[in-house]
Amino acid sequence: MGIPKPIQGQNRVIIEKITPQLDGGRFAVKAFVGDTINVEGDVFLDGHDLLAVRLLHKKTKDRNWTESAMSFIGNDRYAASFSVDTNCQYQYTIESWVDHSASWQHEIKAKIKDNQHVNIELLVGALILDKMAKIAAKEDKKPIQNAAKIFRDSTHYDEAVAFSLSDTMKEWISQYPDKQNVTQHPPLKLWVDREKAAFSAWYSVFPRSAASRNGQHGTFKDVEANVLPRMKSLGFDVLYIPPIHPIGTQFRKGKNNTTNALPDDVGVPYGIGSELGGHTAILPELGTLDDLKHLISVCKSMDIELAMDLAIQCSPDHPWAKSHPEWFKVRPDGTIQYAENPPKKYQDIYPVNFESENWVELWEELKNTILTWGKWGVRIIRVDNPHTKAFGFWEWVIAEVQEVYPDMIFLAEAFTKPKVMQQLAKLGYTHSYTYYTWRNTKAELIEYMNELTQTDQQYYMRPNFWPNTHDILPYSLQGGLEPMFLIRYFMAATLSSNYGTFSPVFEAMVKDAYPGKEEYSHSEKYEVKWWDWTFENKLTHLIRTVNRVRQENSALQRTNNITFCDINNDQLLAYLKTHQNGNQILSIVNLDAYNKQNGVVKVPLNLIGKHPDEEFIVHDLISGAKYFWKGEYNYIDLDPHIMPMHLFRIEGNY
Amino acid sequence: MGIPKPIQGQNRVIIEKITPQLDGGRFAVKAFVGDTINVEGDVFLDGHDLLAVRLLHKKTKDRNWTESAMSFIGNDRYAASFSVDTNCQYQYTIESWVDHSASWQHEIKAKIKDNQHVNIELLVGALILDKMAKIAAKEDKKPIQNAAKIFRDSTHYDEAVAFSLSDTMKEWISQYPDKQNVTQHPPLKLWVDREKAAFSAWYSVFPRSAASRNGQHGTFKDVEANVLPRMKSLGFDVLYIPPIHPIGTQFRKGKNNTTNALPDDVGVPYGIGSELGGHTAILPELGTLDDLKHLISVCKSMDIELAMDLAIQCSPDHPWAKSHPEWFKVRPDGTIQYAENPPKKYQDIYPVNFESENWVELWEELKNTILTWGKWGVRIIRVDNPHTKAFGFWEWVIAEVQEVYPDMIFLAEAFTKPKVMQQLAKLGYTHSYTYYTWRNTKAELIEYMNELTQTDQQYYMRPNFWPNTHDILPYSLQGGLEPMFLIRYFMAATLSSNYGTFSPVFEAMVKDAYPGKEEYSHSEKYEVKWWDWTFENKLTHLIRTVNRVRQENSALQRTNNITFCDINNDQLLAYLKTHQNGNQILSIVNLDAYNKQNGVVKVPLNLIGKHPDEEFIVHDLISGAKYFWKGEYNYIDLDPHIMPMHLFRIEGNY
Repeated sequence: MGIPKPIQGQNRVIIEKITPQLDGGRFAVKAFVGDTINVEGDVFLDGHDLLAVRLLHKKTKDRNWTESAMSFIGNDRYAASFSVDTNCQYQYTIESWVDHSASWQHEIKAKIKDNQHVNIELLVGALILDKMAKIAAKEDKKPIQNAAKIFRDSTHYDEAVAFSLSDTMKEWISQYPDKQNVTQHPPLKLWVDREKAAFSAWYSVFPRSAASRNGQHGTFKDVEANVLPRMKSLGFDVLYIPPIHPIGTQFRKGKNNTTNALPDDVGVPYGIGSELGGHTAILPELGTLDDLKHLISVCKSMDIELAMDLAIQCSPDHPWAKSHPEWFKVRPDGTIQYAENPPKKYQDIYPVNFESENWVELWEELKNTILTWGKWGVRIIRVDNPHTKAFGFWEWVIAEVQEVYPDMIFLAEAFTKPKVMQQLAKLGYTHSYTYYTWRNTKAELIEYMNELTQTDQQYYMRPNFWPNTHDILPYSLQGGLEPMFLIRYFMAATLSSNYGTFSPVFEAMVKDAYPGKEEYSHSEKYEVKWWDWTFENKLTHLIRTVNRVRQENSALQRTNNITFCDINNDQLLAYLKTHQNGNQILSIVNLDAYNKQNGVVKVPLNLIGKHPDEEFIVHDLISGAKYFWKGEYNYIDLDPHIMPMHLFRIEGNY
Repeated sequence: MGIPKPIQGQNRVIIEKITPQLDGGRFAVKAFVGDTINVEGDVFLDGHDLLAVRLLHKKTKDRNWTESAMSFIGNDRYAASFSVDTNCQYQYTIESWVDHSASWQHEIKAKIKDNQHVNIELLVGALILDKMAKIAAKEDKKPIQNAAKIFRDSTHYDEAVAFSLSDTMKEWISQYPDKQNVTQHPPLKLWVDREKAAFSAWYSVFPRSAASRNGQHGTFKDVEANVLPRMKSLGFDVLYIPPIHPIGTQFRKGKNNTTNALPDDVGVPYGIGSELGGHTAILPELGTLDDLKHLISVCKSMDIELAMDLAIQCSPDHPWAKSHPEWFKVRPDGTIQYAENPPKKYQDIYPVNFESENWVELWEELKNTILTWGKWGVRIIRVDNPHTKAFGFWEWVIAEVQEVYPDMIFLAEAFTKPKVMQQLAKLGYTHSYTYYTWRNTKAELIEYMNELTQTDQQYYMRPNFWPNTHDILPYSLQGGLEPMFLIRYFMAATLSSNYGTFSPVFEAMVKDAYPGKEEYSHSEKYEVKWWDWTFENKLTHLIRTVNRVRQENSALQRTNNITFCDINNDQLLAYLKTHQNGNQILSIVNLDAYNKQNGVVKVPLNLIGKHPDEEFIVHDLISGAKYFWKGEYNYIDLDPHIMPMHLFRIEGNY
C-alpha cells in the first residue's frame, strides 16, 4: 500500500494560517526598514497537553533564527512580533512542541491542591530536572541537580512538593525547554525595503524641455540649473526622467504622434536605439555619461534621487536588432515584427519576444543593462509597460538586481487589468502606478483605498498616486479648474505616502488635451518644450506646503495607516492617518470643485485617544488656523474657491 | 549570483486562485459520486495575445488527463466543470498556453477589415497550417495541407484571405492546438465519497439493551430480532453500536459511572480489552464473530449499514498492555500511566501514547485493526475522541484504509474546539459530529449553518446532526417537552442530510439527566437496559414521516444546498433546499415549544423559479395540507402543540 508515513510521526502539533502571508508563502510579504512585523498563527494539538510556541525570524542570509515566545490570544491563536532594521530579505516562521515540563507542573499543581499523594509525579519531575541540568550552562547546573536529588528523596517530600510549584521551577521550565518532536511551519519570506520606498514625492520632467532658452534642446546640465532648484523648492525628492538613450530614425514619430516626422523632429525617447547605441548609451543632445553621473551626484547632494526609465523595446536602429534578431519575432519575409495592435501599427518599435529560444541570453543582457545603470549610481527605475513582458522574467531580474543593490526601487508603469497589476507587485515591484488617476467620487476613493490597504494587497501593493503623467491628462483635469487641480494634487499627496506629478505642465494647470483623448496636446513625448522654471501660483503654494507638512508629520509617511471617517456629505471626504509616535493627521477634502460644501465629521476618538468630553485642537497646517473641537461630531465648511481642504494636525492637551 | 532562472523561462501564463481549493492544495476538497465540480481560476498573461485555457481532470490512479475548454467569465477568470462517478481520489488542474494560432486569426481579421495587405500574415498562417497537418490524423491531413498551399500561392490571395477568416479555420485552430510553453498549475486533490456519505439516518443503540426479556444481556441476535425491524420501520439506514469487544475488569466502572463496580456490573464498552482479547475480539455475551457477520449480512439485506465504534484506548487488561507497554506512557515506578484530567483519575483506561518511540508499529497495528473490521464487512466507523490522538496518524490511516476500502466512512466524534474539529475533517474524516446539539436560537442556527455551508468548510466539513447521543442529553431536552423533541428532531433531519439519534431513549422522550450534567441518568454506558422495541408516539410518527420524505425528495439529501428565508419572527426559522432536478423543500419551524407563533415568510422566488404573479402550491408533507401561495410574502402560523413545523414541497403549475 502506498501512503508513506510522515518522517516525524511523533509530532503532534499543527501550525496553520500564519499572518502576514501571501498566497501560501509563494510570494514575499513586504515591509519597510524600522517596521514591526506582527505575526499570528493557529497552533494546536490533540488532547490537553500544554504547548510551547515560538516565533522565529532571521535575515535570509543568516544561519541562526532569533526566537521569541508567542502569546495566546484566544481560539488556538498565538501572536508575537519582531522588528526589521535592514534593507534585505528576511524569513520568519512559527515552531512549537508539546511542553511536557509545563504540563507536568500544571498537573502536579492540580493533584497537590486535591491532596493527592504525588510521589510518582515527583519522580517524573526529577527526570525533567535531569534533562534541564544537561542543557544548562556549567555554572547553573548545581541547583538543578540539587532539586532533582530532593525530588528523589522521600524524606524531603514536603520540600519537593513546595519546589515543584515554585516560580524557580516555572522559570527553569521556560529557560531549559524540553524540545522534543518540534513542528516548524515552512518559513515565510519578507522583503524589507528602505525608507524611500515608503515615502517619496516624484517630479517627472523631460530633460530636453529643461533648456534655459527657448528653441534649445535641454541637457543634463540644464536639469541641474533649472529643474533641481525648482523641485527642491517645491519639496520633491525623486527626479524621474524618460529614456535618455539614442533615438531611432526609421519610422520616427513626429509632433502629436504623427507617423511622418519632419527632419527637425526629435522623436520619442521610447524609440530606443540608433547606431550610437542602445539601452546603455546616452543621447548626445542630452550630454555625456559623465554629465549624467554629475547630475546624479548633484541630486544626491540635494537629497534628491534620480529615477531612470526602463523601456524594454527597440527602435529598428537598435544594435540588438542586428546582433540578436532572435530576441525578436522574425516574420516569414525575414523582417522583424514591429509592434501592432491591429489595425494600428507602431513601426518605430520592435517589441522583444520573451518566447525567444534564446531567452537565457536575453534575460542576462537585460539584467546587465540594469546593473550597468546601478554602477552609474541609479537606485530607482520606473519600468515602462512591464505588463507586456513575461512575468517570470520580472521575478528573476528584480531578485537578481536586489541581490547586488537591495536598495533598488522598481516602479511598475502598468495601467492595466487588476490581476496583472497585482501579479507584478507580488513578483517584486516596489511601487505600482494605480487607478487613482480615475477615481473621483467619494465612494470610488474609499473603496479603492480600502482595497489597497485593508485586503491582502496591504502586504505587497505599494501605490504611487499620480494626478497626471506624461501619457495621461485625465478628463477630471481637462476642465482646467484650479480647485480641481488643488483637490487632485492634495489627495494624491495625502492618501498615498508615495506620489508624483508630471511637471511643470501639472503646476501650470495645463488643460489642453489631444481631441477626444486623455493625452496632452503637443505632448512633450514628441517635441521639445520650453518652460519658465520659476513660475508660482496657488497650486505651487499648496504643493510646497503639503510637501513640507509631509516631511514634518510621520503619519503622512505611510499609506496603510489610513482610516476613513464618517461625514454626512457625499462631496466631503475625511481620512485620518496616525503614527505610533502620536502624530495624527486628519485630512478633509471637498470633492466639489464648484460649490461650498458643509457637513459633520465623526472623529474616531478611540483612534486619537480622546475622551468624549475632552477638548482638542485641530490645527490646519495649510491655513495656519486652529479650531477647538470636543467629542465625536464636528462641523466642517469648505469653499473650493478659497481652499478645498483642511489638513489638520490633531494637537493634544493644551 | 544566486537566483536560479525558472526551468521554463518561455512560459508567459499565470494560473492562480483556483476554486474549489483547500489551504493551497494541502488538503483534498470533498465531493460525492454524481456531483458536478465547478472549477474556476484566474488565468492571464502579459500583453495582448489570446489564451487557450483547459480544465484537466482524472482519477488519481489514471495516467491521462481528460481535457475540456474553459469559458471566460470576466476579470481574467475562467470556468468549466466535470462530473465524478467513482468513489475514489481525483485530481484536477488548469493548464494554459499562449494561443498563437487564435491570436493570428484575431489579428488578420482586424487587418483585413482595415483593408491592409496581408500577404505576410498569410505566410504566417501557412506555417500554422503546417503544424496542424503534422498532428492531424492521416486521413485529415489533406485539406489542411491544401489550405497551406493556397496561403502560400499569391495567385489565390482572395481565396486565402476568405479561408483565413472561415469557421473551418477556427475549428482547426481549436482542434489542432499549437501547444507551446504550456503552464500547468500543480494538480489539486478531490476525494469523492459514495452516496451514503451524503445522505444517511443513523440509529444508535446499545446491543446489550436489545434483549427480548428484561434482565437479559442483549446479543447480536436480539439486535436482528428487535432493533432492525424498528429502525427499518422508522426509516433509519445506519445502525451504530458502541464497542463490542471484551471489557476489562480492573478498575471497572459501576452504574452511573461509580468507581467501584459491583460483581454483576457489566462495565463500560469503552474499557476495551481483557484476557479474551482486544480490538479484534468480540464480547462473548454479545455473541460470536460469526453472529456479528450474520448481523452485518441481515442489515445489508434490509439496506441498513452497520457502523462500528473505534476507541483507541485500552483497559489495563488489554493484551497490548502486556505485549506493547512501550505504546503507553510508563511511569518511573514501571506502571502504565492511566488516563487523567487532574485531579480526576480514569484508572480503567490506558491512553495510547502517540509520541511512543515505537510509533511505526503502533500505527500499523491500528491500521490492521480497521482493515480486519473491513474484512468482516464493516464500512462505517464512528471514531471515539479522535481529537485526543495525533493528527498525523489520522491523515495516514484514513488514506491507507481508503486505498483498500474507498467506501469506508469515518465519523469523528470530536466535540471540541472549532479548529481541532476542522483539522480532523480536513485530514480525511468523512463526517463530523457538530455543535448542532447546543444551537437553539434562530440566530445561532443560521450563523452555524452558514459557517458550515457558505465558508471553506463546505469543501471538507460534513456535519452529522444529533439532537442527543449516548453521552449527551442536552439541557434543551431535559424539560421533557414533547414539542421540543419534535423540533430538535425535525431540524437535525432537515438542516443536515446526515443525522442520527441515540435510541430508543430519544423516541421515548426520556428527560432524566444525571444531576447537574448533560448526561443521562442511569446511562446505558454503565448498565444493561431493557426496552419495548415496538412503542409508538407522536415523535415516532414524525420520524417515520420525515425519513420517508427525505427518501422521496432529493433536495433533502444534501446539506450545502440550503438558503435561509427571511421571516419576521425570531421564533420562526425558514429554510429552502433545492435540487437541480427541480425538487424544492421549504421547511418552517417554530422554535418556541410553548406558544403559537406567526409571521410572514419571504419566499426567494428567483430560487424556486416563480414569477411574482404566479400561483404555486406548498404541500405540507407531514400534515398533507396544500396551500395556494402567490408572490414573495406568505403568512405562517404554527402551534407547537399541534405540530411545530411545516415541511413544504413546492409544487409547480397545477
